[in-house]
Amino acid sequence: MCGTDAPDAAGPVSNGSHASKANPASSPYQNVNDFISNVARFKIIESTLREGEQFANAFFDTETKIKIAKALPVSSPQSYEDCKTICGLGLKAKILTHVRCNMEDAKKAVECGVDGVDLVIGTSSFLQKYSHGKSIAIIKETALEVIQYVKSQGVEVRFSSEDSFRSDLVDLLTLYKAVDQAGVNRVGVADTVGGATPRMVYDLIRTLRGVVSCDIETHFHDDTGCAVANAHSALEAGATHIDTSVLGIGERNGITPLGALMARMVVTAPDYVINKYNLKALKEVEELVASAVQINIPFNNPITGFCAFTHKAGIHAKAILANPSTYEIIDPAIFGLTRYISINSRITGWNAIRARCEQLGLKMTDDEVKEVTAKIKQMADIRPLAIDDTDSILHSYHIELQKKQAQQV
Amino acid sequence: MCGTDAPDAAGPVSNGSHASKANPASSPYQNVNDFISNVARFKIIESTLREGEQFANAFFDTETKIKIAKALPVSSPQSYEDCKTICGLGLKAKILTHVRCNMEDAKKAVECGVDGVDLVIGTSSFLQKYSHGKSIAIIKETALEVIQYVKSQGVEVRFSSEDSFRSDLVDLLTLYKAVDQAGVNRVGVADTVGGATPRMVYDLIRTLRGVVSCDIETHFHDDTGCAVANAHSALEAGATHIDTSVLGIGERNGITPLGALMARMVVTAPDYVINKYNLKALKEVEELVASAVQINIPFNNPITGFCAFTHKAGIHAKAILANPSTYEIIDPAIFGLTRYISINSRITGWNAIRARCEQLGLKMTDDEVKEVTAKIKQMADIRPLAIDDTDSILHSYHIELQKKQAQQV
Repeated sequence: MCGTDAPDAAGPVSNGSHASKANPASSPYQNVNDFISNVARFKIIESTLREGEQFANAFFDTETKIKIAKALPVSSPQSYEDCKTICGLGLKAKILTHVRCNMEDAKKAVECGVDGVDLVIGTSSFLQKYSHGKSIAIIKETALEVIQYVKSQGVEVRFSSEDSFRSDLVDLLTLYKAVDQAGVNRVGVADTVGGATPRMVYDLIRTLRGVVSCDIETHFHDDTGCAVANAHSALEAGATHIDTSVLGIGERNGITPLGALMARMVVTAPDYVINKYNLKALKEVEELVASAVQINIPFNNPITGFCAFTHKAGIHAKAILANPSTYEIIDPAIFGLTRYISINSRITGWNAIRARCEQLGLKMTDDEVKEVTAKIKQMADIRPLAIDDTDSILHSYHIELQKKQAQQV
Repeated sequence: MCGTDAPDAAGPVSNGSHASKANPASSPYQNVNDFISNVARFKIIESTLREGEQFANAFFDTETKIKIAKALPVSSPQSYEDCKTICGLGLKAKILTHVRCNMEDAKKAVECGVDGVDLVIGTSSFLQKYSHGKSIAIIKETALEVIQYVKSQGVEVRFSSEDSFRSDLVDLLTLYKAVDQAGVNRVGVADTVGGATPRMVYDLIRTLRGVVSCDIETHFHDDTGCAVANAHSALEAGATHIDTSVLGIGERNGITPLGALMARMVVTAPDYVINKYNLKALKEVEELVASAVQINIPFNNPITGFCAFTHKAGIHAKAILANPSTYEIIDPAIFGLTRYISINSRITGWNAIRARCEQLGLKMTDDEVKEVTAKIKQMADIRPLAIDDTDSILHSYHIELQKKQAQQV
């Protein structure tokens, strides 16, 4: 949806880890200046309101859409200034639309007065056969005609293939080269079925980078658990844009999650990510979206999952206390969270609940923590309660508390 | 825990996708015979009962451990025969233990009568400084002494470094080469903090493959969402073993999840995976472990997540109906599941609940489905209910039904 298309200060590529200040330069992965890599100058195309609406349980009303758009962490001081400048021009935002690659759809899109049109067509043999039934020659001819029309109307144009990794490589490159020469602003590569691996992604994007001169956008589904790693590989190979959605919601089990990508990139390129994104906003937008589509934040979610910064005491405890970087690649504080060293008690214990409240930044007195712990135990008597349910109970209890306090004032 | 250390028929490497029968040979990713790759002859070291116990909320009693061990999907006819043969020898299983690399711990381990000792030592500057305080020279000297002792007792020995990706490359290779020459059965590489990327993994394992002749085990944490992709890259580079746990439970947000790795590998090497593993057992062991450590199966879990095989009707519907492979890289049937095409209704609707029951293989009459739907709605009145809570409600209702029926018979 709202990509941060503001021009970036494309600084030198840094492959240092988040903990790089303390890290020895002797690591073979430091100080690699790979000039094709965009890991420290990527852009995010936040698609919660597009791909996310394809999630089985997503039915966003206008109010929810506005809430989500406002809560997205693309709001560093610089992004805010960029937004204000654009808003000052009388525009609300850059409005793009996603249409099938044919003249009829393109004309409708242009008539709506959009700023950009994103043309999409399936290029795999599956989609050629079972979806639109067109040959590559016809696809290319139509694409060039539609692109010429859209450009003639003074509108931005992007061209994406669908199911790119099950498409014939020569077909793909032929198409992309033709649309690049015809002047598209960006080409898109999509792993529509979620079957690509990081090396497949690196190879295709690296090859494509040598064929087109425009920006390259990438879109990865997570069916085989590789959507975050594939995005990272794409950037290393020269892709410029990554599609994400909050918690990854999308068709089937979704796409590259915004939060997990932030976790990945803040380790790869800490300065770029910390300066560009308001990482402390992540937890809130995830909770907003989770509640809108009625899901729990997964227990194993990077950054915001129940246990992401929980260390179980034992062999690790001494080292963690001496220096958290020994067993932690990301400092929770940059996401506005805290670490928690668990002391061999089930998480439903009173002390554990208090620690979780502190981790979430929910201020409560000891009596209040005891009361909400009792509530959690009561709930657990009705049905088996998962630890990741606890967060939502804590949050609703905290909201109630705040309401009561507001009434008393 | 119980690795399938049975000898494999190491067939030719196939990079075909699951849908390869229908796939055109023109895909650039087909028919690549990379002779160093182990993607079609890997072994899994199932660590739910080791790494999994480091998960914040894991406190397994003996009964639970036995249940989990029995439910693991490493139970193809061949694995079963292997197990029977081993059991016939009067052994329960091969018993390995994980100890710090020093003579005292190694002696204790050997005195316990274990079959193998896995020596572990931190090699990163962080761990050298904040954990054990030893230099690489001392680590090497101690390791060789301990290895010689363990071997002299007729016990198998494995040597792993900890935090390998933040260790000095030359230090690492020197150590691994020395322990390989000293005759260890396997070396281990561990991304203890979860910061590695697929290309870092490929490079290190590819280099190591040229330095040691023994097996290579790998262990990936998921802090930056790359644990599945890193495991795949390691196999491509010549690693032989991958550590997993059910749902990935482990320290912090855990390690490579067994189920997600199965999803990944069944696409990369379908014949190998389908013949070796009983994939239909996955759902049950995940539910068992989730319940034991009080977590929900994440909504976006590959294979078993609520929406993994749910397609939202729309642009995709026609093609999915004509040929599911158009928008599905994995056939749900091989995991004993079914696909579901959602027809624009919130998942809590009665028809959606019926579809989910069918997907989970829970047999209920329409009246029973209506009753459980009412229960779900009732529960939702008490507190906001997530769709991924629904599975556990459906399962407990179904168990109740079965109990009632058993009483009536």
